[in-house]
Amino acid sequence: MEHLTNLLQNILQKGSDEDIQVITDFLANMEKKQQGDFSTYLSAALHMERQLEHDRCTIEMPITPLIHNTGKNPHGGILATLLDTVMGTLANSKCDEGFAAVTTNLNIHYLSVATEQTLRAESKILRKGKHTIVVEGYVLEPDGRLLASSTASFFIIPKFG
Amino acid sequence: MEHLTNLLQNILQKGSDEDIQVITDFLANMEKKQQGDFSTYLSAALHMERQLEHDRCTIEMPITPLIHNTGKNPHGGILATLLDTVMGTLANSKCDEGFAAVTTNLNIHYLSVATEQTLRAESKILRKGKHTIVVEGYVLEPDGRLLASSTASFFIIPKFG
Amino acid sequence: MEHLTNLLQNILQKGSDEDIQVITDFLANMEKKQQGDFSTYLSAALHMERQLEHDRCTIEMPITPLIHNTGKNPHGGILATLLDTVMGTLANSKCDEGFAAVTTNLNIHYLSVATEQTLRAESKILRKGKHTIVVEGYVLEPDGRLLASSTASFFIIPKFG
Amino acid sequence: MEHLTNLLQNILQKGSDEDIQVITDFLANMEKKQQGDFSTYLSAALHMERQLEHDRCTIEMPITPLIHNTGKNPHGGILATLLDTVMGTLANSKCDEGFAAVTTNLNIHYLSVATEQTLRAESKILRKGKHTIVVEGYVLEPDGRLLASSTASFFIIPKFG
Repeated sequence: MEHLTNLLQNILQKGSDEDIQVITDFLANMEKKQQGDFSTYLSAALHMERQLEHDRCTIEMPITPLIHNTGKNPHGGILATLLDTVMGTLANSKCDEGFAAVTTNLNIHYLSVATEQTLRAESKILRKGKHTIVVEGYVLEPDGRLLASSTASFFIIPKFG
Repeated sequence: MEHLTNLLQNILQKGSDEDIQVITDFLANMEKKQQGDFSTYLSAALHMERQLEHDRCTIEMPITPLIHNTGKNPHGGILATLLDTVMGTLANSKCDEGFAAVTTNLNIHYLSVATEQTLRAESKILRKGKHTIVVEGYVLEPDGRLLASSTASFFIIPKFG
Repeated sequence: MEHLTNLLQNILQKGSDEDIQVITDFLANMEKKQQGDFSTYLSAALHMERQLEHDRCTIEMPITPLIHNTGKNPHGGILATLLDTVMGTLANSKCDEGFAAVTTNLNIHYLSVATEQTLRAESKILRKGKHTIVVEGYVLEPDGRLLASSTASFFIIPKFG
Repeated sequence: MEHLTNLLQNILQKGSDEDIQVITDFLANMEKKQQGDFSTYLSAALHMERQLEHDRCTIEMPITPLIHNTGKNPHGGILATLLDTVMGTLANSKCDEGFAAVTTNLNIHYLSVATEQTLRAESKILRKGKHTIVVEGYVLEPDGRLLASSTASFFIIPKFG
């Protein structure tokens, strides 16, 4: 533990403002994970806040330097993470007790570059079958402008454990 | 800074072994970022090690609890991040000075669940045009078994700044 | 010409009811093509009737034995033809004089099997940029049930000739 | 029948060289269908000649005015038909007796415009699971130049009847 404290102090001393922001956010998010606000380290690290209603799922995520690509825009893979999560959460909510939906196909069109500080994602079921679910997902700016459009296929499997 | 040190100690005291591993990895990776081993916080956080040859790009990434989904498998969005990076790096390497390749479409088939500790991704150019590049990418286990198959389209734009 | 007349009579004499229907439809559709009802042989052969409004395109197409796969359902490629046409017609209608939109990517989810005699397709622009257009398309039964969902990317090029 | 003969003569009299070619090809292909050379009207009309080996399927198809889009190039939907067929034939060949593979997702990148008279398509299995099959397909010019790249997912269902 002392090693980690020393490592942290060392990084902070040499760190840029962005370095300090990224580490501050990360530790704050890990604390929230410990408090039960997030179910996985990844959703905590990205601060993905989910809302699930009957037929729709919505997630909001802040744009921070952690998710920037080399061009200082949100990395396409992080938009994919947001979309897979917003579509997968909805698909899983439609599965019977003891079953889960796993992504088999994900297709994304990147439409525009984000200009605000927050990403919002939404999803909608296109088809719920016995074995497969097809879902539509979108990433939007706070004002509703479309940033990415997506579809995904899920396969329904029995949960283990 | 003292606030952050206290926060870290607080998290570690309450933390599970997995919590401590995730935070230890993260701080070690941020130190490597400061030392210039990674170009973005995201590639550092995921420890994506890239190798770029003339016609192929390869990336290796460890599977850690940070990238787990609720089923304890690598999140589909992180495989997408790996694929977008391995294909985008190759696409960018084919652009003329002053130009960059931005992802316009990403399509992924998830084929199998990872069983080892490392993900390896590879990419190959399908077509390099004047305005667009189409790339093929794969995620594999260390022994070569296919985990995911992907294609992406890139649009070539002038770099700003 | 006499050769063709003989060939036709020969085929019809040996022909099943389905053979006769397919040939009757084809010749009737070729006559409509000559009369200017269709712009290509393919749209004539498939009897694709288009309607283009400001922001949407709609096409209706009959299900005949000509488009059946070995399972006696409309071939997935014919649904793709319908979708590419309904999305491409809309994309082209958004191009400036002297420019055309060519399909660069087509992604289709097949959701349900057709149960009626007619396919209806609709499309909607997701994004119109300077160089690219992204469009959403659907195939539906007459009662609105979804059969297939699709997206496509188009690249805008100058027309030649 | 006399009605059809009259219709044919009427169309041929008014017909352009292209009209006559399209109708001549169609009737010749329908005759081949009657002789058992093709399993469906669609594969006959498009003259799709299949070869199936253990792990690969190949199809050749002539480029005729019937498959032209308004730009006089092979219609994207016809390339989709060729790809769905070359991938579906291979997927079906991997199913156990009494089972069939139906396309659930088709994704195509259109890479180049055809310059020769023949399209060649090839396919390769990416993954064969218990319930799903993922296949890769390509359309090539006779000299091997890539025209389109594709992947498809298939779901395995029991055959009826």
